[in-house]
Amino acid sequence: MNVKDIQPFVPPLRTLLGPGPSDVHPRVLEAMSRPTIGHLDPSFVALMDEIKALLQYAFQTENQLTIPVSAPGSAGMESCFVNLVEPGDKVIVCINGVFGIRMKENVERAGGIAVTLEEPWGRAVNPENLERLLEQNRDAKIVAFVHAETSTGVLSDAEKICSTAKKFGCLTIMDTVTSLGGMPVKVDAWGADAVYSGTQKCLSCTPGLSPVTISAKAVDKIKNRKSKVQSWFLDFNLVMGYWGENAKRSYHHTAPINPLYGLHESLLILKEEGLENSWERHKKNHLLLKEGLESLGLKLIVPEEERIWQLNAVSVPEGVDEALVRKKLLEDYNLEIGAGLGDLAGKIWRIGLMGHSSNEKNVTYCLAALGNVLREMGAA
Amino acid sequence: MNVKDIQPFVPPLRTLLGPGPSDVHPRVLEAMSRPTIGHLDPSFVALMDEIKALLQYAFQTENQLTIPVSAPGSAGMESCFVNLVEPGDKVIVCINGVFGIRMKENVERAGGIAVTLEEPWGRAVNPENLERLLEQNRDAKIVAFVHAETSTGVLSDAEKICSTAKKFGCLTIMDTVTSLGGMPVKVDAWGADAVYSGTQKCLSCTPGLSPVTISAKAVDKIKNRKSKVQSWFLDFNLVMGYWGENAKRSYHHTAPINPLYGLHESLLILKEEGLENSWERHKKNHLLLKEGLESLGLKLIVPEEERIWQLNAVSVPEGVDEALVRKKLLEDYNLEIGAGLGDLAGKIWRIGLMGHSSNEKNVTYCLAALGNVLREMGAA
Repeated sequence: MNVKDIQPFVPPLRTLLGPGPSDVHPRVLEAMSRPTIGHLDPSFVALMDEIKALLQYAFQTENQLTIPVSAPGSAGMESCFVNLVEPGDKVIVCINGVFGIRMKENVERAGGIAVTLEEPWGRAVNPENLERLLEQNRDAKIVAFVHAETSTGVLSDAEKICSTAKKFGCLTIMDTVTSLGGMPVKVDAWGADAVYSGTQKCLSCTPGLSPVTISAKAVDKIKNRKSKVQSWFLDFNLVMGYWGENAKRSYHHTAPINPLYGLHESLLILKEEGLENSWERHKKNHLLLKEGLESLGLKLIVPEEERIWQLNAVSVPEGVDEALVRKKLLEDYNLEIGAGLGDLAGKIWRIGLMGHSSNEKNVTYCLAALGNVLREMGAA
Repeated sequence: MNVKDIQPFVPPLRTLLGPGPSDVHPRVLEAMSRPTIGHLDPSFVALMDEIKALLQYAFQTENQLTIPVSAPGSAGMESCFVNLVEPGDKVIVCINGVFGIRMKENVERAGGIAVTLEEPWGRAVNPENLERLLEQNRDAKIVAFVHAETSTGVLSDAEKICSTAKKFGCLTIMDTVTSLGGMPVKVDAWGADAVYSGTQKCLSCTPGLSPVTISAKAVDKIKNRKSKVQSWFLDFNLVMGYWGENAKRSYHHTAPINPLYGLHESLLILKEEGLENSWERHKKNHLLLKEGLESLGLKLIVPEEERIWQLNAVSVPEGVDEALVRKKLLEDYNLEIGAGLGDLAGKIWRIGLMGHSSNEKNVTYCLAALGNVLREMGAA
């Protein structure tokens, strides 16, 4: 490629109904373009305090260590594991999709011993199975699980999993990448200890940041580690010097200023709507979509009581070229839906209704476009 | 704080002449606010190819693995160390400021053995001292050094350091966070193996991404590691599946879409100006500032032949409250300059002229404001 030929990039105008990123609210996009200031500027420090308060609201927590990690959700996940897992720690990892597998990888790379609870993809984690496994592993220190599996659209009972873990003296690490803002996430009421999320799903911000909240008990463990956290960048002992309560705001790394403007604005929009109203909107539009998909003869793979509202895993009908359907939706309708991951690649589509993307117009548009494409291909 | 009281954030209009972030070009800010698309969208994949080509131009390299790490410069630093350092590897770390110290920390957290070459703060790394240390450590695998120390404004002779390292069969890790775009960085000509930078200095993009380039030889070492890279998020073996040449563009993590729009635009601006012209501009404005500072009776701490052009470390005159000067500049002039770090805290100011911030207007404004404040305080 000759760099001389490169021109400014003008992105196509998509409707983002995949597994994330979701459509970003225009107010958030505009906020991203406000003038940059320094990461130690008093005005920026005030902004950081507001972001912390808004994240506490979103997570329903009073945890002091509630911050956006300066990198995408995968780094937020890693931050929880490298800070909480010490070499030799036994960690129960619940796996019912791609992100549970990634958790296991994180445990092992942090020097921990992963004991896995494997559940069928497309089904919730069964708390009774977890209890049995904990009885067999009384030396386990941590239970890790995904609240809403982005690879399958499955909800697990976080409250029950956290209380089961607590019964055995375990800390919990909970993935809320897809659930935060789109359905109830109640960190304090459930007693979850280390919880991470992403900005590009139900918060409708651009990808690149990972909200994280850590309980006082987990902070204690981090402060009293015998070995250093293996990541300098993600070491909460250092990050707390910049983001922490009563911190000296001492320089650790340069915070991503403009993306944080965007996160602040997106959290503000969530607050203005109200958490409960946002959850209700996600539920309502999910039900509308579900009805429409059924009218097209399509089936959701997840049992009704285990479905999340913001991501719908749809079986690809027999004989349909699933990639071609997505290609036609993108090219003819500027509409993005997601493919299956891992074991479900080629077998499902993932239709997201997340954050700003979750509205009636998008439901109607998606059903019309999908119906047209399937009819065109003789499949509906 | 009551979240009900939180309002949209309107940042003050600063002039950023600290150690970074620098002023972001309006074209870059505008690019950040363009509509978000998916990280596997064909249009985005085309954008990724352009970013790679533009980064190759900026780094003056043909390295295939030339990508922006999805996190700030500190994570870019960490990505080089966790990928290249295997447990037990001996690494020579040249320390002449804060960022050398951070490198040592990275080596040790990656399980390596750090042997340090300590040079006085405010002076360059002496290649002869390095050669002597390598003679005493023939089993060293890597030499790590900072090209332009952001904490002191010192330039080290990267070409000589790389050739010395090569003589002893060592790979090199080079920090170009502050140099890239502002003064010559010639990765291929110098034979540097793992080089990282930041976006918020001479590229004049917002903070949050870290351009990295890795030589074929270093990629070889990464592919043939005996142990897994300790970070899942920063594992180049996995990242290459998304960003690499002939990659399947398989999902690893969700790329920070809008910040990458910004980086693309900032690299485009650099290409339009031309690398050599950008270097020349940084040099010219540095000389203008230097003259003006001397007229105010102020002294640069770095010997002339070891100075970088984009960051000027200035001695605080005896008896002057350095923090008060910065406070007055910020409050009365909306002008940010930097404080000293580490051993130099309280002893110097750091005045940056980086990227879009490096222009004659800013030099004139800074000298006028600083002169006024010093006179007001009876110190000039």
